[in-house]
Amino acid sequence: MIKKISHIAIVVPELKDVVGFWVDALGLDVAHTEHVPEQGVEVAFLPVGESDIELLQPTDTQSGVARYLAKRGPGIHHICFEVDDIEATLAHLKEMNIPLIDEQPKYGSDGKKMAFIHPKGTHGVLVELYELPPAEMEQHQEASDDLRRRLRDGREVYTAGAKAFLSRIRHGR
Amino acid sequence: MIKKISHIAIVVPELKDVVGFWVDALGLDVAHTEHVPEQGVEVAFLPVGESDIELLQPTDTQSGVARYLAKRGPGIHHICFEVDDIEATLAHLKEMNIPLIDEQPKYGSDGKKMAFIHPKGTHGVLVELYELPPAEMEQHQEASDDLRRRLRDGREVYTAGAKAFLSRIRHGR
Repeated sequence: MIKKISHIAIVVPELKDVVGFWVDALGLDVAHTEHVPEQGVEVAFLPVGESDIELLQPTDTQSGVARYLAKRGPGIHHICFEVDDIEATLAHLKEMNIPLIDEQPKYGSDGKKMAFIHPKGTHGVLVELYELPPAEMEQHQEASDDLRRRLRDGREVYTAGAKAFLSRIRHGR
Repeated sequence: MIKKISHIAIVVPELKDVVGFWVDALGLDVAHTEHVPEQGVEVAFLPVGESDIELLQPTDTQSGVARYLAKRGPGIHHICFEVDDIEATLAHLKEMNIPLIDEQPKYGSDGKKMAFIHPKGTHGVLVELYELPPAEMEQHQEASDDLRRRLRDGREVYTAGAKAFLSRIRHGR
């Protein structure tokens, strides 16, 4: 079963050029940043309600995200849904003849399972599925409840990593 | 302040061709359908968590959505955020020199206010803003809480309109 939209991923040439729109103009916050070398991207996570906007900057010109950016320009790259049972979801999609990029889920370093559905099967939309491991789900839920409370109350929300990131893109250090 | 992702709008040539993926394969439900003649689209709403996937089929070849489809093919058309005060949000965006498609909100027939931000200002992402009128917000919240409870419990969720729509696209009547 699909639980919610986990995130909407937006590919951009340079995080420093776009964070201004999302943070200063639109009023979202960068809660977390991450360098994912195996996907060749730097990612900034901006929570909105129960979901995140994920801004992706390619750090490796050979990555899928870099090729997408070169071909289509900046814009929405994929939507990710959180599911409660990724194996059951993939088995059902296969039974329905939906082409999959990942027939078996990949594992993130944190135990998260993830898989992409091929855009041929979705009429052009790249769809990702996430299943969080029970421990992370609980921890993630607590952290995100806390973050959302802080956002609502106008309190400090930046993690140390996100602070350093914002300082770096704003002041070049 | 941005409250949540209201919806992700996906433009498709024919609703009947894609509902199979979203409903039968992915397991979402069509809660509601609407013909919006002023925008030249037929829309199917599929709730996911606190947000909706909106599938848009152009019904008028001159509409913006039809031109988008002809130029770029099917895919994600825009993201819409629900805000608590759309005038204040637009005023702030203008102050930040973000180009707007709608400098003043448009009103839906139901009192909803809406405005689009120009993709030039967002590096390629078409962003819409919604503000629901207080009465609708409450009603919408109740209806959507009820819907989400029904979805969770595996109970009947289709409105009469959505039922007729699904029957029409599946059986041609």
